[in-house]
Amino acid sequence: MIVGSHLLQLALELSGTFVFGLNGALIAMESEHLDLVGVIVLGMTTALGGGILRDVLIGAIPPAAFRDWRYLAVAAGAGLLAFLARQIWVRLGRLINVFDAAGLSLFSVAGTATAFSAHLGPVQSALLGTITAVGGGTLRDIAIRRVPTVFSSGLYAVPAAAGATLTAVALELHFYSGTVAVIAALVCFGIRMTGVHFNLSLPASRPPSADEGSEA
Amino acid sequence: MIVGSHLLQLALELSGTFVFGLNGALIAMESEHLDLVGVIVLGMTTALGGGILRDVLIGAIPPAAFRDWRYLAVAAGAGLLAFLARQIWVRLGRLINVFDAAGLSLFSVAGTATAFSAHLGPVQSALLGTITAVGGGTLRDIAIRRVPTVFSSGLYAVPAAAGATLTAVALELHFYSGTVAVIAALVCFGIRMTGVHFNLSLPASRPPSADEGSEA
Amino acid sequence: MIVGSHLLQLALELSGTFVFGLNGALIAMESEHLDLVGVIVLGMTTALGGGILRDVLIGAIPPAAFRDWRYLAVAAGAGLLAFLARQIWVRLGRLINVFDAAGLSLFSVAGTATAFSAHLGPVQSALLGTITAVGGGTLRDIAIRRVPTVFSSGLYAVPAAAGATLTAVALELHFYSGTVAVIAALVCFGIRMTGVHFNLSLPASRPPSADEGSEA
Repeated sequence: MIVGSHLLQLALELSGTFVFGLNGALIAMESEHLDLVGVIVLGMTTALGGGILRDVLIGAIPPAAFRDWRYLAVAAGAGLLAFLARQIWVRLGRLINVFDAAGLSLFSVAGTATAFSAHLGPVQSALLGTITAVGGGTLRDIAIRRVPTVFSSGLYAVPAAAGATLTAVALELHFYSGTVAVIAALVCFGIRMTGVHFNLSLPASRPPSADEGSEA
Repeated sequence: MIVGSHLLQLALELSGTFVFGLNGALIAMESEHLDLVGVIVLGMTTALGGGILRDVLIGAIPPAAFRDWRYLAVAAGAGLLAFLARQIWVRLGRLINVFDAAGLSLFSVAGTATAFSAHLGPVQSALLGTITAVGGGTLRDIAIRRVPTVFSSGLYAVPAAAGATLTAVALELHFYSGTVAVIAALVCFGIRMTGVHFNLSLPASRPPSADEGSEA
Repeated sequence: MIVGSHLLQLALELSGTFVFGLNGALIAMESEHLDLVGVIVLGMTTALGGGILRDVLIGAIPPAAFRDWRYLAVAAGAGLLAFLARQIWVRLGRLINVFDAAGLSLFSVAGTATAFSAHLGPVQSALLGTITAVGGGTLRDIAIRRVPTVFSSGLYAVPAAAGATLTAVALELHFYSGTVAVIAALVCFGIRMTGVHFNLSLPASRPPSADEGSEA
């Protein structure tokens, strides 16, 4: 039972690390002129940044990404793969969004479970799960000077928070299992892809004078 | 006595959280096209970022913002209020600067006291109080791609450091009290608002060729 | 022996802090309109940021920069010196690159040794040494909105990783000494300056449409 839950957790996290590493590297290559090392480092930032933030905030030091070489290897490998097979990914186009939604789903569930098993309450665990899911991509966006998706596209934090909340409720009420994890991840994935597909958004504010630009 | 000091600390921190949450959300709405979630997240980043940085650096893990739900609620509420009552705030105009100076003052005092009570020395406590005060706004500015106020406006870090130093001296010499906290906060507030009002600044450097822009 | 190794470590770190503080302040003055406090804060960010990141990740709390006043004093002094003697530095031109390569070398060796002495494995120690070396400059670049050197110039992370790896191997095999530290630092310095001099770079990706710009 404990072995099963540990394997489930590891599978969720390594899968999330891989898809976020791919996605992060592809988005980085779209935005800036980067060399091989830059692409791999940004893939690793996207894949590992959220989990490192969570581990620092719950005091799990050194973070899992530094304790277990598999995280580093999977994240670096995904970045390398993105760099080498660039043309294939570009042709597949919208696949970037699918990878991103998959990483978001896997990390919101896995991040919540990690925080909960470090004895945080359900509300805090859900919040830290959401941070795990959106943190890496936000760090990448800041590094390559994009407005972070989490600030400009409401249906990015919302699905992550939904998946994390479902997971935290299940953990608190003692019915968390592989099936529940898959359902929570699918809920997050579904909301995110629905938002992407129909280009849904939340009510927004507008800068007072659009032509003034953002330099204050 | 201990209850009084604890209540004072909590009142300072929750007030600072509220005004920084309002201010952060208003500045974020000025600069970028953001949706509801983005505005609230940036309000929370401004309100809680400095304290989380401080707590990570002094090893108070998980940070207070994750241990006590009131911080999260107050910060999120302030962001929501800023979003809903946008038109009112815009008309009040310069109130943004007053909120910002108030948050700066409350956090420089409260952050110093928190670091000191974690057994750091007076110099380190004053430095961490300054980081508490300027950290959240700096994170927000980086996220929305503004040059952080702390780097471009000298009379931002200076008043925070003044309030923090007064607090640290009072704590070290055992005469810290509610009155001293208010005086230290007023000193910070006064220096900051004087700087804003008269548009004072410190000696500055100029980029070598202004028309070349900042893209290297 | 232990005293010697401790003095070596301190000398490496304070020298690295000084050259990174100078370099960080000079680069900051090149890029943005900053006042005295901004220049000093960015010098300190460059000089101390990498070490603080490392200390947070290995759980050495509070970070050395807050425990030992000499780090703060050296970093702030270097920033002040850069501000005051601006004209001299500008005339010396390419010296910025030399300072930067020196800081990179000293911090990759010293950061690896610090992580290793906190009982991390050799791979993790080398990674954390690399983070110590490139972290401060990356934080500065993000704060002043430059594309971080580590993402756009491959021969920045590579020399740091080379120096860190040599150091970690020597520590693991018990032949680390002052001579080995100097050799590892010189290897890093040599690779970096070779890259700068011949403008070498790694294979790079190109944004799909260069004229579209990087603002998404």
